Amino acid sequence: MIKVSVLYPNGPGAKFDMKYYLSSHMPMVKQRIGAAMKGVAVDEGIGGGEPGSPPRYLAIGHLFFESVDAFQLAFATHGGPIVADVPNYTNTQPIIQINDVKM
Amino acid sequence: MIKVSVLYPNGPGAKFDMKYYLSSHMPMVKQRIGAAMKGVAVDEGIGGGEPGSPPRYLAIGHLFFESVDAFQLAFATHGGPIVADVPNYTNTQPIIQINDVKM
Repeated sequence: MIKVSVLYPNGPGAKFDMKYYLSSHMPMVKQRIGAAMKGVAVDEGIGGGEPGSPPRYLAIGHLFFESVDAFQLAFATHGGPIVADVPNYTNTQPIIQINDVKM
Repeated sequence: MIKVSVLYPNGPGAKFDMKYYLSSHMPMVKQRIGAAMKGVAVDEGIGGGEPGSPPRYLAIGHLFFESVDAFQLAFATHGGPIVADVPNYTNTQPIIQINDVKM
């Protein structure tokens, strides 16, 4: 199983609309990609390691696929409208990382 | 539920021993923290968003707790030997982020 993590960096002026992301963006991603996506997870950054410190990322979205090929096929097919929706909930430039789920 | 994510940055000369992390570090963390930890997950970075690009993080470990207080109590009690073990599997400086699990 692979996990595609989309990390939205924190920083001066950085904004992330979690309500829109949960109620509109993620349902659209699920609906478009369909059965190729095996699961999703959403994290909201609330702090760093030290008490009172800010989180490095405002939010992190995780999309699960059977394989890198399955992810790449899904995004080649459906990536356009998904990426086009990003400015509707954030002004940040997300970092994408593909992970092999080990545990 | 909160998720404490420990991100190990990629970079020149960065090393991460996944075998040690899975077979020795994580079992020790589980054993020491015990029931306060509600779950763990481990990701190995295998690429960035663009095909062939490197991952931002070599690995990401996720520890689940009921609350920030439960995490802070666990680490005040058991953090010493856990942190002391880090140089046994990586030469990187991990970033810690506390997340509120939204989905």
